[in-house]
Amino acid sequence: MENSLREQSGVAVRHQCRAGVIIGATSGMAAGYVQANLVVLPQADAQDFVRFCVSNPKPCPILGLSEKGSPRIPSLGSDLDIRTDLPRYQVWKNGVLSEETSDITAFWREDLIAIAIGCSFSFEEALLVDGIPLRHITERRNVAMFKTSIPCQMAGRFGGNMVVSMRPLLAQDAIRAIQITSRMPAVHGAPIHMGNPALIGISNINTPDYGDAVSVLNDEIPVFWACGVTSQAAILEAKLDFAITHAPGAMLVTDRKNAEFTH
Amino acid sequence: MENSLREQSGVAVRHQCRAGVIIGATSGMAAGYVQANLVVLPQADAQDFVRFCVSNPKPCPILGLSEKGSPRIPSLGSDLDIRTDLPRYQVWKNGVLSEETSDITAFWREDLIAIAIGCSFSFEEALLVDGIPLRHITERRNVAMFKTSIPCQMAGRFGGNMVVSMRPLLAQDAIRAIQITSRMPAVHGAPIHMGNPALIGISNINTPDYGDAVSVLNDEIPVFWACGVTSQAAILEAKLDFAITHAPGAMLVTDRKNAEFTH
Repeated sequence: MENSLREQSGVAVRHQCRAGVIIGATSGMAAGYVQANLVVLPQADAQDFVRFCVSNPKPCPILGLSEKGSPRIPSLGSDLDIRTDLPRYQVWKNGVLSEETSDITAFWREDLIAIAIGCSFSFEEALLVDGIPLRHITERRNVAMFKTSIPCQMAGRFGGNMVVSMRPLLAQDAIRAIQITSRMPAVHGAPIHMGNPALIGISNINTPDYGDAVSVLNDEIPVFWACGVTSQAAILEAKLDFAITHAPGAMLVTDRKNAEFTH
Repeated sequence: MENSLREQSGVAVRHQCRAGVIIGATSGMAAGYVQANLVVLPQADAQDFVRFCVSNPKPCPILGLSEKGSPRIPSLGSDLDIRTDLPRYQVWKNGVLSEETSDITAFWREDLIAIAIGCSFSFEEALLVDGIPLRHITERRNVAMFKTSIPCQMAGRFGGNMVVSMRPLLAQDAIRAIQITSRMPAVHGAPIHMGNPALIGISNINTPDYGDAVSVLNDEIPVFWACGVTSQAAILEAKLDFAITHAPGAMLVTDRKNAEFTH
């Protein structure tokens, strides 16, 4: 990625998404600005889904909500149009992926509600600023993510088990990472597990269900955070008539700063 | 221990120490009140020792200091006499234990300074209140403590390696314990290690250097906190002409509340 994209503001990145210039992953863009998972659902499903998120705030922290029919989320950015401002979307019909597109204007309806959900990019930035190395970033891979045996609270048709992201850390970095992420509850907060993966139903740490495998060294502890992919998995399992999500890695870049979400 | 002692105030416990009624361990007495390690040294050594504590705040957090020659530490209690208000003391001469006594009035000198150092009783209470079980308490043993390979910052003749206390915890309790103790820096704060004991120079988790062994179950992580015994070990290694400390477990009970030390 060009350095210029890292140094741009959230709204500048959105403008380039809107113009069709940025159509891929947003990792590393607009450093310091909050990026979010996007879910767009018809009103009835959206009500259940919001209840699902509220009941499972560690994997699915709600950062922003649109009014019914409105493609704006003013709390995340004044010059923000949900229909055009992400690089890439996935449109789901009858429970299966229908198409990928960089503009969902043609799919917009008056009964849709957009839900923005916190993303681990925010706390990863805080960890890196603190000097904690993250292997998947060093190795230029996606973070390793796993389905667990931890059930989510159900709401309507939304349920399933929690998905977690794993980062291998030295003990002292793990302690520090717990301190830092505990102060960021709006972007997944403290880890939900560390150590033995089998205790949360992960049989093989080398075969993630999403993302890429990263090595866990002898002196490291695998540390597990609740992951926003939990919401995507719940939507997939619910086999909805209609849903739109961001394409993997192609997030909503907002005007909010990660620093605002540290208490 | 009688329930009445648990429910008494710090000053009430001190009065009974002063009267010679309480002469043993103070664990569980005056619930909610801060207990402290005590070190009494001649001025020159005290200056170095205070510098040692300030340089090593995780094992040796200073809670109170007397003026030279004064047996009072008003910040820890108005009706407090260091010479009589602990159940039991150890008097050290020429680097070896000279005697144990329940009153050091006969040893008091105009050049002595008393230093009170934070103790893990404070954060253990916070963990128990949060519902985190502590095995050494359940099993009515002393906490397991170990010499580590982690060097302290030296000051004058005071140095040596850090001593840690170990508590086996389930992962979710360990995460919560890190959150809770991070907010209590004046009483050792966050753990300094967790997981593999060998990484901090502990070769056998079943043979502590101080206190009692406790079992670490398969689904538990050993969590290590810096321990005030570090200061006692440093004094022993310094082979001082003269020093007074509390006898093991027979702490200074203060008027301060543990809750005051949570930020």
